[in-house]
Amino acid sequence: MIPRYSRPEMAALWEPASRFRIWFEIEAHATDALAELGVVPKAAAAAVWARGDKPYTAERIARIDEIERETKHDVIAFLTELAEQVGEEARFVHQGMTSSDVLDTCLAVQLTRAADLLLADLDRLLEALEKRAREHKDTVTIGRSHGIHAEPTTFGLKLAGHWAAFARCRTRLQTARAEVATCAISGAVGTFANIDPRVEAHVAAKLGLAPEPVSTQVIPRDRHAAFFAALGVVAGCVENLAIEIRHLQRTEVREAEEFFSPGQKGSSAMPHKRNPVLTENLTGLARIVRSAVVPALEDVALWHERDISHSSVERMIGPDATVTLDFALARLAGVVEKLLVYPEAMQRNLDRLGGLVHSQRVLLALTQAGVSREQAYRLVQRNAMKVWEQGADFLTELKADPEVTLGDEELEKVFDLGYHTKRVDEILKRVFGR
Amino acid sequence: MIPRYSRPEMAALWEPASRFRIWFEIEAHATDALAELGVVPKAAAAAVWARGDKPYTAERIARIDEIERETKHDVIAFLTELAEQVGEEARFVHQGMTSSDVLDTCLAVQLTRAADLLLADLDRLLEALEKRAREHKDTVTIGRSHGIHAEPTTFGLKLAGHWAAFARCRTRLQTARAEVATCAISGAVGTFANIDPRVEAHVAAKLGLAPEPVSTQVIPRDRHAAFFAALGVVAGCVENLAIEIRHLQRTEVREAEEFFSPGQKGSSAMPHKRNPVLTENLTGLARIVRSAVVPALEDVALWHERDISHSSVERMIGPDATVTLDFALARLAGVVEKLLVYPEAMQRNLDRLGGLVHSQRVLLALTQAGVSREQAYRLVQRNAMKVWEQGADFLTELKADPEVTLGDEELEKVFDLGYHTKRVDEILKRVFGR
Amino acid sequence: MIPRYSRPEMAALWEPASRFRIWFEIEAHATDALAELGVVPKAAAAAVWARGDKPYTAERIARIDEIERETKHDVIAFLTELAEQVGEEARFVHQGMTSSDVLDTCLAVQLTRAADLLLADLDRLLEALEKRAREHKDTVTIGRSHGIHAEPTTFGLKLAGHWAAFARCRTRLQTARAEVATCAISGAVGTFANIDPRVEAHVAAKLGLAPEPVSTQVIPRDRHAAFFAALGVVAGCVENLAIEIRHLQRTEVREAEEFFSPGQKGSSAMPHKRNPVLTENLTGLARIVRSAVVPALEDVALWHERDISHSSVERMIGPDATVTLDFALARLAGVVEKLLVYPEAMQRNLDRLGGLVHSQRVLLALTQAGVSREQAYRLVQRNAMKVWEQGADFLTELKADPEVTLGDEELEKVFDLGYHTKRVDEILKRVFGR
Amino acid sequence: MIPRYSRPEMAALWEPASRFRIWFEIEAHATDALAELGVVPKAAAAAVWARGDKPYTAERIARIDEIERETKHDVIAFLTELAEQVGEEARFVHQGMTSSDVLDTCLAVQLTRAADLLLADLDRLLEALEKRAREHKDTVTIGRSHGIHAEPTTFGLKLAGHWAAFARCRTRLQTARAEVATCAISGAVGTFANIDPRVEAHVAAKLGLAPEPVSTQVIPRDRHAAFFAALGVVAGCVENLAIEIRHLQRTEVREAEEFFSPGQKGSSAMPHKRNPVLTENLTGLARIVRSAVVPALEDVALWHERDISHSSVERMIGPDATVTLDFALARLAGVVEKLLVYPEAMQRNLDRLGGLVHSQRVLLALTQAGVSREQAYRLVQRNAMKVWEQGADFLTELKADPEVTLGDEELEKVFDLGYHTKRVDEILKRVFGR
Repeated sequence: MIPRYSRPEMAALWEPASRFRIWFEIEAHATDALAELGVVPKAAAAAVWARGDKPYTAERIARIDEIERETKHDVIAFLTELAEQVGEEARFVHQGMTSSDVLDTCLAVQLTRAADLLLADLDRLLEALEKRAREHKDTVTIGRSHGIHAEPTTFGLKLAGHWAAFARCRTRLQTARAEVATCAISGAVGTFANIDPRVEAHVAAKLGLAPEPVSTQVIPRDRHAAFFAALGVVAGCVENLAIEIRHLQRTEVREAEEFFSPGQKGSSAMPHKRNPVLTENLTGLARIVRSAVVPALEDVALWHERDISHSSVERMIGPDATVTLDFALARLAGVVEKLLVYPEAMQRNLDRLGGLVHSQRVLLALTQAGVSREQAYRLVQRNAMKVWEQGADFLTELKADPEVTLGDEELEKVFDLGYHTKRVDEILKRVFGR
Repeated sequence: MIPRYSRPEMAALWEPASRFRIWFEIEAHATDALAELGVVPKAAAAAVWARGDKPYTAERIARIDEIERETKHDVIAFLTELAEQVGEEARFVHQGMTSSDVLDTCLAVQLTRAADLLLADLDRLLEALEKRAREHKDTVTIGRSHGIHAEPTTFGLKLAGHWAAFARCRTRLQTARAEVATCAISGAVGTFANIDPRVEAHVAAKLGLAPEPVSTQVIPRDRHAAFFAALGVVAGCVENLAIEIRHLQRTEVREAEEFFSPGQKGSSAMPHKRNPVLTENLTGLARIVRSAVVPALEDVALWHERDISHSSVERMIGPDATVTLDFALARLAGVVEKLLVYPEAMQRNLDRLGGLVHSQRVLLALTQAGVSREQAYRLVQRNAMKVWEQGADFLTELKADPEVTLGDEELEKVFDLGYHTKRVDEILKRVFGR
Repeated sequence: MIPRYSRPEMAALWEPASRFRIWFEIEAHATDALAELGVVPKAAAAAVWARGDKPYTAERIARIDEIERETKHDVIAFLTELAEQVGEEARFVHQGMTSSDVLDTCLAVQLTRAADLLLADLDRLLEALEKRAREHKDTVTIGRSHGIHAEPTTFGLKLAGHWAAFARCRTRLQTARAEVATCAISGAVGTFANIDPRVEAHVAAKLGLAPEPVSTQVIPRDRHAAFFAALGVVAGCVENLAIEIRHLQRTEVREAEEFFSPGQKGSSAMPHKRNPVLTENLTGLARIVRSAVVPALEDVALWHERDISHSSVERMIGPDATVTLDFALARLAGVVEKLLVYPEAMQRNLDRLGGLVHSQRVLLALTQAGVSREQAYRLVQRNAMKVWEQGADFLTELKADPEVTLGDEELEKVFDLGYHTKRVDEILKRVFGR
Repeated sequence: MIPRYSRPEMAALWEPASRFRIWFEIEAHATDALAELGVVPKAAAAAVWARGDKPYTAERIARIDEIERETKHDVIAFLTELAEQVGEEARFVHQGMTSSDVLDTCLAVQLTRAADLLLADLDRLLEALEKRAREHKDTVTIGRSHGIHAEPTTFGLKLAGHWAAFARCRTRLQTARAEVATCAISGAVGTFANIDPRVEAHVAAKLGLAPEPVSTQVIPRDRHAAFFAALGVVAGCVENLAIEIRHLQRTEVREAEEFFSPGQKGSSAMPHKRNPVLTENLTGLARIVRSAVVPALEDVALWHERDISHSSVERMIGPDATVTLDFALARLAGVVEKLLVYPEAMQRNLDRLGGLVHSQRVLLALTQAGVSREQAYRLVQRNAMKVWEQGADFLTELKADPEVTLGDEELEKVFDLGYHTKRVDEILKRVFGR
């Protein structure tokens, strides 16, 4: 997480002020529940809210840091500062709880909120992709396999494919959110020896989490591994679309470009030097987000009821992966929304092979007209070769070949691009459901 | 995928005979659909089934390989051999289709069948874990955080935690199975230019797949990335339980051991040399399964309508990850089913600290009896230190300390292990739902 | 390691026959040393060679497997079969040794031999790259940053860059080879309690290894991690060159192509459909080789004097990574050796922007002629824009612009491609050292 | 890179002030060389040093940031601010250079300096390890394979093994340092079209780098991949030692502990609750450092003469991996320096099996005394079993067994721990070279 690749809302989520605020809420709700159960005085719970329910300012954070330097324990430092605010009644706070109860539940809140921001990012991206897909649903372009011209498709269809991938990512993220949305307030080794499970239930309900059915000292880390793995898959889809755009912007292809304002200077004297820097950057950011997957998987196997090896990992990949993906999705949405699309260039590239993209259909038409497959192949091949080697026009050559027994009209029909795009509306309906 | 770590059913799924059989079914069903649509003669479809519906024997596979050596194209080799079986009518097979339609749909079938085998593996493991968890639900053992004794828990609770993790893995695998269970028969760049989408729908229905809403030349690879990522998370859970057992079998701990038959010789003259080789092996296998995640993520970003870089990756990680995980889950289930559990050793280890695990409760009891927190801490600490440094018994020391104002009976109550296990049934109910 | 991506020599290295042969050599040499030290009879050592020094045939391997099924211990099975060959004197074999002494030293032999094969592969690739680099040292082509035309370079210079990368890989592989080229025959926990270090020294010398200065039960796994990491870096360089070629073969670029024989049919009726399938395949194989790096790193942290978790990992990544990289390097060498290079296409692409690649130099020339930087920029920009938007020729436009005060000759000099290639020989000398 | 896991010197290296300072030095030295070559006035070069050679204060950095917000180009912003300091002559700065010349050479300086700090860290760690290894060279402890007692070794030998691993890491880091210690000042696509290679040579010499033999727009990224891979291997070794210590500190083992001051309170009322939090933390930090390896490998394959995807990756993993590893090595050195070692506990654990660790030697002694191997095994086994099952003392049982024909003295000799430690000095000499 570096400022260059951060957006404020997601970054704020990982700031001390947010973390302490969530800790406060966990403790205050837990105290409410303890009071309700008669374990602590109701007045204590009320006092916590009355005097503790206020923002964590820079001063308060500095004070907590000061205490932590002494006690070397972050939760104790937090509680001590809280006691300074709340007074005497603060001694009832945290009763029967373990630091991990607070830390893990807080992480659950942070990750679910991060997931919500990412879901909103995806919504914006999906909207942009659908809009542009519909706008260009009939914009014919060459489909390429292996980087080589294959058969025509439309630019809208390309985008619809990416829409579908990100729609799947949305579902994956929702699943991932549910994975980590649990609350554990179960004590030192998860037995609830010192705390009633109803406290956990109350806090969970207040924070929008589910109680963790069985915890040790910590919430099990397979949940977090699944979460970061889902982010990794989303990053893969970001890279996929980024690479598509980078390819389209290549000088030789130039079918689409990242937006630049009309008056904007290119990066040098050469006006063509418009670099796809945003999508290149997204390619790199995807690598960063994906790099959180392996350590998250390595975090699963904690010793016995917990070891603390996961903690340093999460302090880094928690912010890094979510902040970077948030930034990447927002950047990608902007790229799609403002993408400059050049249908004429698409047509020009499509035509570059002199109509050869239709060769398969010519072959088929000849066979259907009774020519043997071998002979048809020979005929197509010899005319195609002239186009390929001498830059001739395929249709013209075919018409001129006496052995090609198809009439001109018939041949022209075979060269109809509409043949390739006839199913586009049907496919879009499958994708968008309307 | 090496024989040493393979089980026959999963390995067979990736054998040529299975692959060709699935290809046959895809082609035969597609021909049925084409016949139904009037594109090819019904007699042709019937002939394919009549003369092609038979196993791929070693001879047939050798024949296909022979043709492939010539044509350097696996699907063409397959179709040529099929034509040798079916005869003349075979020329209607594969009409309007692309190799990838066959290959990708076949991979979908293989991965869903692999997922089914893995789900069955998980079911066996879950059953074993629940059985052993219930068997040992009241077997008290020390809970450890940081590898250090913390507070008591039960062995059944430990296992219930692992059961819950694998139950989550079951859900993840089902989700992963759904991710890859799609069929694409959409032609060279996914436009259905040469084939009616109803063919895809028919084949999908026959093979238990859903039609892929929008494909390019291939089914999008974010699906496969999500699949292998899910296997990686399962592998993480395998490692977690494996490490727990390895820890318990350490010479100094020896609370549980992998099974060995009573008459079985140890690996040497030393009877204690019973090594947890199965769970050590599982730790390694988990690394192998996880190693498929990164290349699967890297496969997502294919160029334009496809490049073939993913293919070699999948030829290796497809079998490797599924076969290894299948083997690992089966091995782990066996380990759990036959795990030797030593409750006396658990009790012995628990008692090793002379009752110090109860120190926290003594502290609490003193405070509740009106002793100030500081004084209570001092009292606990000085008696604890004697236990820790001189191997004394904590309860005895406390009773003998005149400043410890709690009565003997009261103190004994505080030393009650039942305090820590009182919620076990409730937790198990949360976990198992009954 | 699958046959499709294997070459015989490297694959054979990992076959049981090779492994058993290496085991035999380790044991026989060790027995020699023991005899020399007077620990075992010299006759015994002689007998081992006399009756044991013969190939591991399929029958012998089957016999070993049969014994292993009983004993569940591979080294014991091996020794038992050896005793069947050698007779009575075989009881002196393996004295004071541990299985790991044999296994780890064998792995060292296999990995160093694998490294030797890979070094030979690199030599062939380096030779091909240098040859083609010199052949095309003056073949001008456009240099591209961000996929966008930048300034001219030569195709030879491109290849020289890849040569330099693979030359570095050669050094890295040599270092990696040295990392794993150690022999440990130090007993159960590495103390040489039961065996004289001179045995280790003798075996090491015979097998071309260095004695491991300090081992536990095993050779430390940071060595193997460094080895596989080096393979991963080589794989990265393979991908880099593969991607370059894939880009050059794109339909719109087509400056180079993987070889196809003149009479060879394209993959369909379309003659342009020559897919860069070899380099696409290499892109995928690079992912596979790299996927060994993470598990190898995870293998480093073994418990105490060893746990066996690394073993299953190495049984898979050992063959997989070396066999796949061997295949990849050989394939890449073939691609480079036979690469079809199209200098005219390179020139055509270079000219595609109507001379705009020279705009920077025009700017410079104007400034040097006394025009202010701002004015020079304006002049260049307005002429460049005409080229860019209307497809004009840049030189023509500049000559026609009255405000551009440079003479025609001077302008033509600025448009000299030689300006960009004047250092090529000097750079090649830096790279190749001659 | 988060403050919690950062040390000031390494962190400072990645601060803007350091980066700009290095940029300044590159530009100033390059201007010197240009002046020497007569390309720019000597007075200009002198002016750059005279008025530019001063620290990058917060104000200057803020000014650069301000300009960057306008120009969206970091190097231009830097040059503009420099011009504000230097005045008129600044227009001769950066002549013929490309931004990447500055950026990549700067990264080379940062990574080599980072390597120097890491090498110093390793030196401290190596010193600590050697000191403790020598201190405990005769401290007998049980060697464990599979977590199970095997044969005796010494604690010094354990540490010597880790010393050897980190000594290898030192060599690896030096190699990695050399990998990235190159300077490229070669222009837009690496042809030196606009700049004399002697400028590169001069800057390289001044900054302690070698000229990059052939660059594109950038220094090739296989160098950086090799660098980060080396850090990953070091991290693996950190984890290895961290895990050893965590194991030794387990409650049941407690042969060593991370330092705590005598008066220090345990983390709770329980004095045994001394958690190995530092080494647990190191286990996690190792995961973080290793997580840089995969993205660094993915960065190698840049498009043509460069794409900018590597940039965002390096902005994050550059600081993250080096700062974290620096922190980890320093922390580990501290842990080793102050590690509390408990030789009595080691002896106690060694004795825990009643002398069974000598069973192998008893077996050998019996065989050497003429007992058949089978009979010897039976005798050892039946006495060992009594020890194992009833907690008897092995030596006592053997002496009492009439069939064990070895005399008491002979038996006692067999139980001599010195047998296992007799080679320790020899091994240490192999390791430390003295």
